[in-house]
Amino acid sequence: MLRLRHFALCPFSRSIRLVLQELNLAHELVAEGADAAVPGAQGLALPADLPLLELEEGGVVAGAYAISEYLDELVGRGVIDARGPRPFPGSGEDRAEARRLVDWFHRRLDREVTQQLLAAKAWPRLLSSAPAGAPSSAALRAAHAKLRQHLDYVGYLADTRRWLAGDAPSFADLAAAAHLSVLDYLSEVPWEGAPSAKVWYARVKSRPAFRPLLADRLSALPPPAHYADLDF
Amino acid sequence: MLRLRHFALCPFSRSIRLVLQELNLAHELVAEGADAAVPGAQGLALPADLPLLELEEGGVVAGAYAISEYLDELVGRGVIDARGPRPFPGSGEDRAEARRLVDWFHRRLDREVTQQLLAAKAWPRLLSSAPAGAPSSAALRAAHAKLRQHLDYVGYLADTRRWLAGDAPSFADLAAAAHLSVLDYLSEVPWEGAPSAKVWYARVKSRPAFRPLLADRLSALPPPAHYADLDF
Repeated sequence: MLRLRHFALCPFSRSIRLVLQELNLAHELVAEGADAAVPGAQGLALPADLPLLELEEGGVVAGAYAISEYLDELVGRGVIDARGPRPFPGSGEDRAEARRLVDWFHRRLDREVTQQLLAAKAWPRLLSSAPAGAPSSAALRAAHAKLRQHLDYVGYLADTRRWLAGDAPSFADLAAAAHLSVLDYLSEVPWEGAPSAKVWYARVKSRPAFRPLLADRLSALPPPAHYADLDF
Repeated sequence: MLRLRHFALCPFSRSIRLVLQELNLAHELVAEGADAAVPGAQGLALPADLPLLELEEGGVVAGAYAISEYLDELVGRGVIDARGPRPFPGSGEDRAEARRLVDWFHRRLDREVTQQLLAAKAWPRLLSSAPAGAPSSAALRAAHAKLRQHLDYVGYLADTRRWLAGDAPSFADLAAAAHLSVLDYLSEVPWEGAPSAKVWYARVKSRPAFRPLLADRLSALPPPAHYADLDF
């Protein structure tokens, strides 16, 4: 069986948990500690960010980028019996648009917002020795301002398309939802100021694939009451 | 003809210039200003990092991730008459290994080293108003320490494999070389302490695809003499 090494509040791990669920691929989860998810950590057996997908035949596919493309190829070639559509559906240009957005969320939103707020709110509670370089209050203000811009852009996409990358759901929806779900776990998403993004997120959050993420609970950092509420 | 919007010292742009050359695909370059390459800039027509690939039929493929995969698909499907091998050659697992490394260089090396040293050495010379958040001297020391670790890892790969991702050259070599060439332009690579990485880089740098990059000259920030020297 496939085995995924992940961390509960790692947005990359969450995006792959979502795609495995959407594809209905049997897999086992192995929870890593928070220290494996801090950027710059050298704790994994090979240089990569979480998650790691261990294959039945023994190889390892490392990182959300390689895993999402690996699964897309398996589904595309009909090698695995997946229930869902390909993570990158459609024409070459449709696929390029989904990848532009994945890159936007997994690199830009991650660097500008998610990692900043994890460093401020999660690592001090979850790590025995918090890594150096906790964000300053100016950096946190900048992260909150960037988050509002990212929410506006998600809302713009949600208003003008059926799904973020086009007519079909894609890995871009899952990558964006992975980050927003981490930020929502930290109570950091100003939903009241982002009605269009909220409607889209409520739709993704209601999918059966999302349920395991909503059941995540870290005892040292419990989520707010609205986190698992589909009617937030 | 394909048209690539790029910036001379943008590592993502450089990786795509290299792959277009390796594939021998006719294309036209349009130089953007440094302000389009600063992370966080909102200067482009759509939310993406440089480069942008404008297609003959009118679409735009945005960002190194989407462009590299788009070109790989075109070559794989035989749609374009490319001379070189696919950017991601081999089996599904071979391709995953190349992607792990691309992600490592384009996300980790970029964040930990390349963007820090561009912010310290390039943006103050190239931008009329340097963006806020120039790295502290402690951050620069950390970036230099990280660079030595990355060079060690490149050297380890070069010592144990023919090319960074395996037996065949791949986009992983081009992504790594793109970052190192930017850092070399800034005179920031301690080659004397990284003999294995240097041997690999000299091999990549000698390829005809590299020549246009070695001819890059920014008048406000000229490269060191050894930058274009194949015998550096």
